[in-house]
Amino acid sequence: MRIKRIGIKTKHSRGSEEALSQEILFQASQLKRHAAGIYGFGNFLIRARNKIVDIIRKNLEDFGCAEVSLPILQPKNLWKESGRWDIYSDNKQMFYFSGRNGEYCLAPTGEEIVLDFARDNIVSYKDLPINIFQIGNKYRDEIRVRGGILRSKEFLMKDGYSFHSSFEDMVLEYENMKKCYFKIFKDLEMDVVSVKALNSDMGGKVSEEFMCFSEIGEDKILINEDKTLALNEEILQDEKALEMLKQTNKDLDINKLKVVNCLELGHIFQLGQFYSEKMNGFFVDETGKKKAYYMGCYGIGVNRVLGAICENNCDEEGLVWPKAVAPYSSVIIYSKENEKSAANLYSSLKEKGVDVVLYDKEATFGSKIKDSKLLGFLYIIILGNKYLEDGLYEIEDRVNSNKMFLNEEELIRFLRS
Amino acid sequence: MRIKRIGIKTKHSRGSEEALSQEILFQASQLKRHAAGIYGFGNFLIRARNKIVDIIRKNLEDFGCAEVSLPILQPKNLWKESGRWDIYSDNKQMFYFSGRNGEYCLAPTGEEIVLDFARDNIVSYKDLPINIFQIGNKYRDEIRVRGGILRSKEFLMKDGYSFHSSFEDMVLEYENMKKCYFKIFKDLEMDVVSVKALNSDMGGKVSEEFMCFSEIGEDKILINEDKTLALNEEILQDEKALEMLKQTNKDLDINKLKVVNCLELGHIFQLGQFYSEKMNGFFVDETGKKKAYYMGCYGIGVNRVLGAICENNCDEEGLVWPKAVAPYSSVIIYSKENEKSAANLYSSLKEKGVDVVLYDKEATFGSKIKDSKLLGFLYIIILGNKYLEDGLYEIEDRVNSNKMFLNEEELIRFLRS
Repeated sequence: MRIKRIGIKTKHSRGSEEALSQEILFQASQLKRHAAGIYGFGNFLIRARNKIVDIIRKNLEDFGCAEVSLPILQPKNLWKESGRWDIYSDNKQMFYFSGRNGEYCLAPTGEEIVLDFARDNIVSYKDLPINIFQIGNKYRDEIRVRGGILRSKEFLMKDGYSFHSSFEDMVLEYENMKKCYFKIFKDLEMDVVSVKALNSDMGGKVSEEFMCFSEIGEDKILINEDKTLALNEEILQDEKALEMLKQTNKDLDINKLKVVNCLELGHIFQLGQFYSEKMNGFFVDETGKKKAYYMGCYGIGVNRVLGAICENNCDEEGLVWPKAVAPYSSVIIYSKENEKSAANLYSSLKEKGVDVVLYDKEATFGSKIKDSKLLGFLYIIILGNKYLEDGLYEIEDRVNSNKMFLNEEELIRFLRS
Repeated sequence: MRIKRIGIKTKHSRGSEEALSQEILFQASQLKRHAAGIYGFGNFLIRARNKIVDIIRKNLEDFGCAEVSLPILQPKNLWKESGRWDIYSDNKQMFYFSGRNGEYCLAPTGEEIVLDFARDNIVSYKDLPINIFQIGNKYRDEIRVRGGILRSKEFLMKDGYSFHSSFEDMVLEYENMKKCYFKIFKDLEMDVVSVKALNSDMGGKVSEEFMCFSEIGEDKILINEDKTLALNEEILQDEKALEMLKQTNKDLDINKLKVVNCLELGHIFQLGQFYSEKMNGFFVDETGKKKAYYMGCYGIGVNRVLGAICENNCDEEGLVWPKAVAPYSSVIIYSKENEKSAANLYSSLKEKGVDVVLYDKEATFGSKIKDSKLLGFLYIIILGNKYLEDGLYEIEDRVNSNKMFLNEEELIRFLRS
């Protein structure tokens, strides 16, 4: 890709964003605020997000989940069935409105619609279990938004739902999804812990949050020294839960636990029969009896993951993306005398399958390098005086904070390794 | 994937859908009507749609376009700027409503938001040209909806926009995008023609529609025998345009043109300065003068493409997907005695990278085959009596309407060819 065609106009002055990553994304013209809580995402952010989506999708399929796509524009009657229309509309958590054919809301979450989707296909215990997911926008009319990615009125979510003939089968799938989630975050090169929620407003009993450590996180959790135990901080206020914890972890010294800030990235729930009982989610069991099925629900905030990756992989100079989700691996910067050689290298690298950007915008050498660091290229390939002298490319390796001089053959080998 | 986990409940009775493909998609439980004009899409449709999206994205990037993502929830003020708020809200073409922080609409189209996105990044002629695109939902409160895919209130679109310092550069990019579109439809294995629109309500002058022939299409065009000329039927009512046509095509006999039905899949526009003049879309040119930039706009109805592919690749038995977008290539069907062998073959094919489905639902042999044809697998692999006797798989090749008996090695070679 040629950087001119992408339309990037960097700013190198510090603004007023609370999180450094958000600041950098604005400076890199990767975030555009269109209105309160409403943001546009630039090419680098979207390429990274597409890679996150691919990793999530691949793993879910490996763990036996089938992708579908359910409407985001949802009819009121489904939300009346579950009893959640009034709850969500009264405190304006969701957007709702009238149209030509009735009243609608924009999905803040998907339990109602997925139940409506699935109930056509579930008649007997033989039709269970099912596990389906979708990747699409959700909408919440948030009072307090955070910097465009972490909390906005429109955001990308992966939400998945499973359906079971028994409580035990639901628990089994919940554990399967838990394994899947750890695999997803491992592939995303993210360090996460799972934390049991003490209670939940989703209607179910057991649920678990997937958190990554981050100074800008609003959630606080308690962890032990080797991070094998992570607890919701609220447990300190809950005597009953605290007592249970002490009984199951005799060696635990609560006073030695450390409080750390976290960002919630995912949440899995055992919903049980909460929705199926209210919304006619019935099947006929082995004995011929009609029964409400058990449901599990599994969410990942895709924008959240993107935001957390940015926050945990940046410094004052800019982003250093993890390899797994880097928008582009390399950029070619050149002095005017090397313009033709740079264009040749660009063609040659593209041909070899390297996702490289040609920095074809007029600017000083210094500001080209500044921009390249800001945007988060892993490798900056420079055609300057050194290249004129002996034909060697100067490589600034941002991953290993290293400098190298390589010829074309060595460069290609390096970039493809 | 195991078919049980996907949650498919096929029906084999004819319903009341106007288009055969829509009928088949309902029978295959791939379309679910949640409300008037609001549909959920099943796993097979979404896997096919993802492949369509990949093909579109890959080609756009090859032609120098950069992906971004702009909000679908859009603030009223932008639509007031362009003057289109009243037009779209008065006749209820779009959904609009109030929220916590003001009034919004759900994007029926994206000119306003992309201009707001781009104007931060365009200052000088040196910042031009730019070409960006996005793939996301659009919303229209349609009066008359068509079968879930062809016209619904929520639908997936690719919309792209280019920005230029001169009229000539805009025309150049328009021609570049035209080439790109033909390449996209070629990769999708679709036969399309481009038809110049006589006029357009998008504000620009020149525009062209990409159409595929289809009996259920609502657009009518005129074509000559070898399909090298395709004209909007309206031209017959437009004396001036007709006169111009006769002058530029001296040999043309209008009476010999044939009227055919078409589905519109894409539309490209030369918007000119229509939006930039209204919305402060200015840049400074070489002479230091402030000037409104020229815009191009390029859309593809992704759901439309999906619907057209289904319609043009089905018969009474079911779908036969084009290879490029087939949700899964193969399905394994087995008799009870061959259950273990089928599971082994399934693992072995998956390991080899074949996207195969194991038909692990209880049903008669006949109805398994019926389902497999309905859903559109290209190759049905059968483990029946023949397999018990001599270990050969029976392959029903739906692409070439052929039957074969193969051993495992031959089967793998065939599926990977």
